[in-house]
Amino acid sequence: MSNPADADREEGLSFLPKFDASGLVTCVATDAATGDVLMVAHMNDEALHKTIATGEAWYFSRARNTLWRKGESSGHTQRVVEMRTDCDQDAVWIRVEQVGAACHTGRRSCFYRKVEGEGGKVSLTFVDAGRLFDPNAVYRK
Amino acid sequence: MSNPADADREEGLSFLPKFDASGLVTCVATDAATGDVLMVAHMNDEALHKTIATGEAWYFSRARNTLWRKGESSGHTQRVVEMRTDCDQDAVWIRVEQVGAACHTGRRSCFYRKVEGEGGKVSLTFVDAGRLFDPNAVYRK
Repeated sequence: MSNPADADREEGLSFLPKFDASGLVTCVATDAATGDVLMVAHMNDEALHKTIATGEAWYFSRARNTLWRKGESSGHTQRVVEMRTDCDQDAVWIRVEQVGAACHTGRRSCFYRKVEGEGGKVSLTFVDAGRLFDPNAVYRK
Repeated sequence: MSNPADADREEGLSFLPKFDASGLVTCVATDAATGDVLMVAHMNDEALHKTIATGEAWYFSRARNTLWRKGESSGHTQRVVEMRTDCDQDAVWIRVEQVGAACHTGRRSCFYRKVEGEGGKVSLTFVDAGRLFDPNAVYRK
């Protein structure tokens, strides 16, 4: 916190998102009911302001280079209960009421596998393998 | 999920972190007791493997361009209860037992301000202004 701009960002009441070189901040969405992390995605300035204005989660897709409303294809929308920003305002946390599944694979959360290391070997185990929808049916062209 | 590598990343049991151009994945740390998001930071390959091997959170600082063990200056360490990875393995979620405060400002969580929009104006309000330590005392040179 070496200059006044940083001080204002950390201690002030102005919303001054610190966008990265691609114009994005990181967004963590958690389930308002359980506290589980549902997904990590990105928002640009427009996505942030649409989310705040509408109370529904909007993101910016780096892969598709486009703004999208969560659930616009799948119907699995996110109603935002609360949005917070972090100390340096390069990330936001939204607590949401998730309709159905947050993950494009059909799982409730994108974080459906646990990472474990044993004897130097790291591997994954499924915590929640169950799909709430069939991605091939929902996203087929 | 257009190629076998993506399929393996999403559905397989191999830990195949998808590092960005800087060699980093995003890490979300939540409080294992309350579910609150404590911080969002980054891990490189070494930080990931040190975290898995030691059960304590290690990160990579983009600002200082160095590996660091959470709490190495402040004493406010994070014991990892569980690590998960997301569908495309470019983010990890760790549930931690946080000693003291996660934020360098002295707050328990970096997300100590709420973002609210009213009548087109967006501003912040403090949810948790209280500091668990004095950053000037802890980080002074």
